[in-house]
Amino acid sequence: MNTFGTLFRLTSFGESHGAAIGGVIDGCPAGLEIDLDFIQSELDRRRPGQSRLTTARQEGDRVEILSGVMEFPAGGGKLHTTGTPIGFIVRNQNQHSSDYDDLRDVFRPSHADYTYYMKYGLRDHRGGGRSSARETISRVVAGAIAKLALRQLGIDIKAWTQQVGDIACERDWTKLDLSRIEDNAVHCPDPVIAQQMEELILQVKGEGDTIGGIIAGVITGCPVGLGEPVFGKLHAQLAAAMLSINAVKGFEYGDGFAGVSQRGSEQNDKFKVESLKLKVDNNSSEQEDTRLSQSQLSTFN
Amino acid sequence: MNTFGTLFRLTSFGESHGAAIGGVIDGCPAGLEIDLDFIQSELDRRRPGQSRLTTARQEGDRVEILSGVMEFPAGGGKLHTTGTPIGFIVRNQNQHSSDYDDLRDVFRPSHADYTYYMKYGLRDHRGGGRSSARETISRVVAGAIAKLALRQLGIDIKAWTQQVGDIACERDWTKLDLSRIEDNAVHCPDPVIAQQMEELILQVKGEGDTIGGIIAGVITGCPVGLGEPVFGKLHAQLAAAMLSINAVKGFEYGDGFAGVSQRGSEQNDKFKVESLKLKVDNNSSEQEDTRLSQSQLSTFN
Amino acid sequence: MNTFGTLFRLTSFGESHGAAIGGVIDGCPAGLEIDLDFIQSELDRRRPGQSRLTTARQEGDRVEILSGVMEFPAGGGKLHTTGTPIGFIVRNQNQHSSDYDDLRDVFRPSHADYTYYMKYGLRDHRGGGRSSARETISRVVAGAIAKLALRQLGIDIKAWTQQVGDIACERDWTKLDLSRIEDNAVHCPDPVIAQQMEELILQVKGEGDTIGGIIAGVITGCPVGLGEPVFGKLHAQLAAAMLSINAVKGFEYGDGFAGVSQRGSEQNDKFKVESLKLKVDNNSSEQEDTRLSQSQLSTFN
Amino acid sequence: MNTFGTLFRLTSFGESHGAAIGGVIDGCPAGLEIDLDFIQSELDRRRPGQSRLTTARQEGDRVEILSGVMEFPAGGGKLHTTGTPIGFIVRNQNQHSSDYDDLRDVFRPSHADYTYYMKYGLRDHRGGGRSSARETISRVVAGAIAKLALRQLGIDIKAWTQQVGDIACERDWTKLDLSRIEDNAVHCPDPVIAQQMEELILQVKGEGDTIGGIIAGVITGCPVGLGEPVFGKLHAQLAAAMLSINAVKGFEYGDGFAGVSQRGSEQNDKFKVESLKLKVDNNSSEQEDTRLSQSQLSTFN
Repeated sequence: MNTFGTLFRLTSFGESHGAAIGGVIDGCPAGLEIDLDFIQSELDRRRPGQSRLTTARQEGDRVEILSGVMEFPAGGGKLHTTGTPIGFIVRNQNQHSSDYDDLRDVFRPSHADYTYYMKYGLRDHRGGGRSSARETISRVVAGAIAKLALRQLGIDIKAWTQQVGDIACERDWTKLDLSRIEDNAVHCPDPVIAQQMEELILQVKGEGDTIGGIIAGVITGCPVGLGEPVFGKLHAQLAAAMLSINAVKGFEYGDGFAGVSQRGSEQNDKFKVESLKLKVDNNSSEQEDTRLSQSQLSTFN
Repeated sequence: MNTFGTLFRLTSFGESHGAAIGGVIDGCPAGLEIDLDFIQSELDRRRPGQSRLTTARQEGDRVEILSGVMEFPAGGGKLHTTGTPIGFIVRNQNQHSSDYDDLRDVFRPSHADYTYYMKYGLRDHRGGGRSSARETISRVVAGAIAKLALRQLGIDIKAWTQQVGDIACERDWTKLDLSRIEDNAVHCPDPVIAQQMEELILQVKGEGDTIGGIIAGVITGCPVGLGEPVFGKLHAQLAAAMLSINAVKGFEYGDGFAGVSQRGSEQNDKFKVESLKLKVDNNSSEQEDTRLSQSQLSTFN
Repeated sequence: MNTFGTLFRLTSFGESHGAAIGGVIDGCPAGLEIDLDFIQSELDRRRPGQSRLTTARQEGDRVEILSGVMEFPAGGGKLHTTGTPIGFIVRNQNQHSSDYDDLRDVFRPSHADYTYYMKYGLRDHRGGGRSSARETISRVVAGAIAKLALRQLGIDIKAWTQQVGDIACERDWTKLDLSRIEDNAVHCPDPVIAQQMEELILQVKGEGDTIGGIIAGVITGCPVGLGEPVFGKLHAQLAAAMLSINAVKGFEYGDGFAGVSQRGSEQNDKFKVESLKLKVDNNSSEQEDTRLSQSQLSTFN
Repeated sequence: MNTFGTLFRLTSFGESHGAAIGGVIDGCPAGLEIDLDFIQSELDRRRPGQSRLTTARQEGDRVEILSGVMEFPAGGGKLHTTGTPIGFIVRNQNQHSSDYDDLRDVFRPSHADYTYYMKYGLRDHRGGGRSSARETISRVVAGAIAKLALRQLGIDIKAWTQQVGDIACERDWTKLDLSRIEDNAVHCPDPVIAQQMEELILQVKGEGDTIGGIIAGVITGCPVGLGEPVFGKLHAQLAAAMLSINAVKGFEYGDGFAGVSQRGSEQNDKFKVESLKLKVDNNSSEQEDTRLSQSQLSTFN
């Protein structure tokens, strides 16, 4: 099942050791201006090897859009979507299969090699395949185009590194300067914490090891009522999307697991005030959106 | 979007203040013996009001199966599925609408009343509707039938209360006696912790308040390779299912968020040993399954 | 696969010899007034045994809507949809299983008994099951509600009997008085042809036999561009819907098979004139709609 | 909606005037040997311009498979599917946009230009786009791979031209030598009729006109019970697939519309004998299949 989404739908394909990674976006609205530089900048953010912190392998990922866009007006205008499916590919660089000869007889720990072998019956010792992190290229391209579409509706999505090992950026997101996420290699908006994260990663890397982390995100500008009850709830679909990314082990929204220790009266307070304000001001959408993007849409009865 | 699943698929309907809650199960294998007592016992477990710990409202939920089953052999045999869709309903008890008159002019905090009103444009002050906990009746019936089908494949699903407020049952699940989950009203397999949980809930209830909790679960007997890459990964679909339940705020599996502080070498070790064992013993499924399926889901109400 | 549709989606269940036939409509817009009398009148149209022409078995099919509707304003207002899934059932009358004892050892010709038996492995000699014509009850209820929704958009659907055996009503639909479809038992708008059809059916019935027929339909008021290229084309989805009805063997739209003998120049002429008019008048929608409802949206290159 | 199928699923993209036509096949079984020559031969069959009968434009369509296959054993073995999605593209030749300048101000009759323009709001006077016959390239590639998979199960699909204008090949398919379908440019297994069809097409072409036709097909080797009741019936899905092809106006299977004039007793006889044979011989699948799969599809261009 390599398709995700309903109205805006990505079908993804490609292995790390094949010819290309790509996808098809079906349902993108027609008439959306496509900013290729933005898509490329998102691909560059995804790419490992940009700094001394990550693996050194250099990948120059260039997207080629094969369909679903045209210059408008025809012959010289800017690129726009046409309403038809957007096919795209990113070619893989030539891989030297001999680099993987030492993996010929082992299943790597914490990798999906063994599972793929048992499920499909073919062994590709070069590993990775669809379980390679390169698979996320398709998500990044589709996500970039989705961001362009959402931007027109005033919806903005931001994500950053909140924790690496035990180094955490614990301030509430409203206290962070999200314009500084791209200022450092670890994508943490707090420059002091970012420095500590970098040092930890370098230390762990020096020991030939790896370390885990937590990504935080906020969506602003959502209209009230996004998502479809009961199985298409926004946070349920977000959880599925996030946990379909390799190596992701957990998802929480709003207060998440921290809320377990709280009383209902503590959690309800904030909500009560907001809904009161909404009724008084008849001007709810902006604040409601924020609340929703923080994903505190809880019901208990 | 009130349909969940691909091969075994539940479509759910029903409001807490309507005539009935029900659903349609499509894709259930033919020839499965249907144990109505088991389905009813699962419904009874779901039902609030069984003990002094929860709300006092008494609900006697009886399922009626309308299609998809027949006595086999015809005329006197046991009930079996036929391969056709299984329609079922659970009637709601008569509700006194006047009970809700004090809600006529308010949107309840931490409820979905406001969101439903904004999304659909109709106001039902009796609240609840699809966002009532009664909606889970359909899930319980479909889940019970799924358990009957999985039991034939040697797959078993168990879940219990792991934490209430700050009272946690922290032992590894392999150290717990899961046969004792039903021994107490809080469904915690550790009787001492269960006692503490009960006391906390009664205390909070006495204060007119509520408290959160964490549910843990384990699935044993899974074959290697369940789920479909990349968007249909088993844990991604589980996350979507769990977060589509009212009031659930987070999902993690395996080590979950706790793994963030660990080094790759710590996490890999275990896996390496397992996969080594697998290769040596050619007897991998049970241990692999366990690793794959250990999921912890949080819900608080 | 007992679900049809995307935005407005029917999931159907129920066997002719089970407790009830029913369904779930997901995606119906909120705030639609539900005219129960209209739904019942559509069910009555479907019901056999209304006249001497069809089988004598009397069925009094009464629909019960279980969810997805409420009185609005609450407590006395008219029934409206709420945006949540609409569950409904029609109870089957008590069936005497002994009536079917002579079928215990045979598979009926032109029935699906044998196929069901081979596919699902259970034998129900009372036959029918999901392949009974009673399965269409769910379609009729969902279709009636769809008609109510489409009526608000100015879209109207009409269907009638165009041919029985060799007796055909061959006039173009624009020459027929479609208000007279319900005037006779065979649902043919031409009273003279209707009389001949009735006579043929009675004669064939007297011989203990049955005879085939053709249904024609027209949809007026469609906006330009309904349906989704390339696999969701309106006529492709209509064909799937029609051929999923028991005993339907063919589907054509526009000129259909008759167009095979025509030259492109004959067929193009009409279209050219229309599109010319559209450009000149800048008032295309109504005429285009008609053209679309006749389903002549052909492209050839 | 550019995705078709459930277990074996094609997502298609590409315009006639864009960079490439392509698709993604999801769900193809792993371990299937991929015969590139066969896929190419199917693409060649699709390609117009092979003879004096069709339009002269030469297209050399070469498929490039981008994912989902590997040499097995790795490094020198034959190409096999891996179970992951198969992405593929066929590059379009460079098109000279100026060729279409005379279409800048007109909507072509019997084309979808106007409908696309109204639906999506962008005007591409070069026309075609997704409604070009080149869109079928994706279907042919996916169909060729499906044929390779079905061949392993003993299922075979054959189609041929049954009628062009009024020239029809009316013999029952069991009387035709289907090995001769490729012997002539019109793909008709009867050489005498084929000659007449060719002459008619050349004559019509000489008059600057076009003519319609009917394609017939037969699927042999189907197991009993293919397809899923009630909306996933095999013939219903076939009808949707066929009518989603440009310019197709009708679909019938079995006796189709011709059966309307027949009595039930005439139609049942054959079936009764078959089902009797099935019970007696316990050897039903081949004949049953044939009956089930005889479908006649019309297309004219």
